[in-house]
Parts: sequence; structure tokens; C-alpha cells
Amino acid sequence: MNEQLLLENIRGVLIRLEDTIIFSLLERAQFRQNAVVYARGAMQGIPAGDSLMGYVLHETEKVHARIRRYTSPDEAPFYDDLPEPVLPPLNYSDCPIHPNQVNLTSGLREVYEERIVPHICDEGDDGQYGSSCVCDCACLQDMARRIHTGKFVAESKLRADPDRFLPLVRGRNVQGLMTAITDTTVEARVLQRVFRKAGAYVSDLAGESLRPKLSPERVADVFSRWLIPMTKHVEVQYLLERGDGLE
Amino acid sequence: MNEQLLLENIRGVLIRLEDTIIFSLLERAQFRQNAVVYARGAMQGIPAGDSLMGYVLHETEKVHARIRRYTSPDEAPFYDDLPEPVLPPLNYSDCPIHPNQVNLTSGLREVYEERIVPHICDEGDDGQYGSSCVCDCACLQDMARRIHTGKFVAESKLRADPDRFLPLVRGRNVQGLMTAITDTTVEARVLQRVFRKAGAYVSDLAGESLRPKLSPERVADVFSRWLIPMTKHVEVQYLLERGDGLE
Repeated sequence: MNEQLLLENIRGVLIRLEDTIIFSLLERAQFRQNAVVYARGAMQGIPAGDSLMGYVLHETEKVHARIRRYTSPDEAPFYDDLPEPVLPPLNYSDCPIHPNQVNLTSGLREVYEERIVPHICDEGDDGQYGSSCVCDCACLQDMARRIHTGKFVAESKLRADPDRFLPLVRGRNVQGLMTAITDTTVEARVLQRVFRKAGAYVSDLAGESLRPKLSPERVADVFSRWLIPMTKHVEVQYLLERGDGLE
Repeated sequence: MNEQLLLENIRGVLIRLEDTIIFSLLERAQFRQNAVVYARGAMQGIPAGDSLMGYVLHETEKVHARIRRYTSPDEAPFYDDLPEPVLPPLNYSDCPIHPNQVNLTSGLREVYEERIVPHICDEGDDGQYGSSCVCDCACLQDMARRIHTGKFVAESKLRADPDRFLPLVRGRNVQGLMTAITDTTVEARVLQRVFRKAGAYVSDLAGESLRPKLSPERVADVFSRWLIPMTKHVEVQYLLERGDGLE
């Protein structure tokens, strides 16, 4: 795949994922924070050491692992003890990124539980634990895909300007790489677009006098404070791990 | 709960579910029909007698059953061999509907696989089986909730006009009940709203030059041809099963 096509492809995937994430956040925000679902050991009947949300996420990942979700190079699971796929493997030999182990899901889960949920949901407990957890899994899985798509973004940036990137990779210059991958114009455009789309969805709901609990500002905050920085973190980690090969 | 409150609540739930369903359909329509995922026994590695999609749906329902999803009176599972909840039961004594066994999921699944998927997805096979199936599960679960919310709609209609409904229930007058629950003005309003919302979502995607494969007309068709009639079918079945009690 040539670089221009790669970049356009990734751009399409990221824009599409914005909608998915915005919608998942709006769904989760129907329910209160329900902090107990994130507390390890707090819920009777759940395996010791995990929370109710973790249990649902773990079980969901087991199902998805069996249909080979995590063999896809843009996926990264939250759990590392998943079963083997029951389906035959797909051929990813056309995949433009290098093999790598970059997986920032544990940080994402922590940020989600401790920062994002309190930012998007009303305080308190409404007893809707199962529904909250199902929404949480969707949010986390969508966000994980978004940030790990950073691997493709990084690869395309490196290929577009190897003279700039390869010395930084060779020197393991984290700060230099962060500066090189940062495009503040693109970031501002993402935030404007997210704000606009979230506003359109919310006003559609509000127009029917339903509780529009989640403001477009807060949706955009999720991207500016957490998702964009974590995506960039994936980009830098990926570049450091892939090394300076250019085939 | 008084009748007016009940009706307003249900209306809010249904409008909210419209958005969820529209979004699930748009997500599924990213992929081709991939008919092989619905063919029983076609996929190596999947338990004999079920399709890949059925496998994913079944396994997902097992996870959700353990967190008591199907103890909720607005839920109806597609499979009847699900495990018991690991969480303690919730108290649904305030639930306004009567205990009942109405479950139209097998008809919904058939209609979805044979009519709805071909209506919303491009023909052919893109190999994205796992992603298609995950989207299918979301579509089916969201649609199942929508049609079974008909139980609440029917209960509120009966309570609002018992003099009209109770003789029809006593006489098991299916045609009379169908006429009594039908409100063509409300149906037209639902379709207009779905059309408008689907148009807004699709144009948001199209504005970014992404493939807007699914037209607002086709989304509205899903409601007019299948979801609204199935919801009304649930309403009538529920009324026949609940009987003529008025507590």
C-alpha cells in the first residue's frame, strides 16, 4: 500500500471511530457513575480480585478472542490470558505496521475508571450495574482501538519523512519523537469535529426532551485530555519498538 | 406508577432506543453481507448446528445472563439455555407489566438474517466475519429490547382505556386488539423522526467523505417493515397472555 493511501485509510478509520466513541460515551452517560462496579472484590458472585466491570470485559474478550479479534493488528486486549481462536487465522501479510507488543490498555482502563467515568456520568448509584458494565465494555473496546490505531499513524508519519524520524528512532529520543508526531492543527480539527458531532447527537436527543446529561464540551474533553495524548503515547512507543527498518 | 408517567417513560425509552438501533445499523452496514456467518455448520471451529453469528450471540448472552440481564422485564434472550445470574436478584416488584413468557426473538433473528441484513449491507463477502458478528449482536440485542418494550406500551394502552381493551382480551380478538393498539399518527411520527436522525448521522459521516452506504430511507424501512410490526405483534401477544386482570 502506498503512503498516501495508507494515510487516507487511517484517517477514515479514525473519523469513523470518533462517532463510535461519541455514541458509546452518550450511552454510558445514561447511567450514574455506579462506582461499585469498578471496585475489585466488591461484588458478590464475581471471581475474587476483579470488579464486576472487569468480569464482563474479561468474559467478552474471551468470546471475541475465539473469533480471532485480537489477531488483528489494530486490536489490543485488556486481558492477557485469552483463549486461542476457534477460527482459522487470517492473513495479515499486507499489514503496513511492524510486529510489536505495544499495548496501553491497562493505563486506558485506569484513566477510564478514575477520570473519564466521573467526567461523563452523574454522581451516585442507580443500581443499573449490568447495563453500565455493558456500556463500559463498548467504551473501552472502542477507545482501545482508537489509541492503538496510533501504530498505523506513526508508521505512515515515519514513511512520509524518514530523514526526520529515523535519527530520532535510532537515538531513542522520546521527546524528539513526541514533537515530530505532534500536529496541533490536526488535533484542533479533531476536537472541533468531535464537538460538532457530539452537539448534533445531543441536540437530537434533547429535542425530544430526553436528558442530555452529557455536554459536547465534556465529550471533546475526553479526546483532548485522554484519547489524543494516549494515541500519541502509542505512536511513540510503537516507533521505539519497531526500530529503524525501512522496507 | 400512574399511567401518564408510565407512558412518558416508555416514550423516552423508545426514542432513545431508536438512536441506538440507527447507530447499530450504521455500524453493521460498514461491512458486506457476509452471508456465511449466518449459515449453520458453515464455519470450521464453531459448535455444530449453529452459525458463527449464533455462536457469538449465544456466548454473549451467557455473559449477560450471569450479570442478570434477562431478569429485567424489558429483555428477552435469543437462547433458552442460559446460565443463572451470579449477581443477587433485583427487585422488580414495581414493574407495571404482568409476568409473561412473550419472546419473539426467534422470528426477529430470522427476519434480521434474511431480510434486514440484505437490505442494509452491500452484497458480497469482505472477510470481516468477527466484526460483522459483533455488530449483528448489537443490532439484535437492541432490536429485541425495542420490540419487547411493546409489553409496556400495551399495558399502558390497556390501562388508559380498559373499557375498550378488556372485552377484546376476554374475547381473544386478535384483529380487534391489533386495531385497538394501532396509532397511525404515532407510527408516522416515529418514521419521520428515524428518517431525520438517520439522515443527520449519515450526512455527518458523508461530510467527511466516508462511505455513507446506508441511506436514511433504508433505515426507516427497517422500522416500518419489521420493527414496528413486530412491536405490535408483541403488544397483542402480551395482552392475550396477561388476561383481563386490572389491579
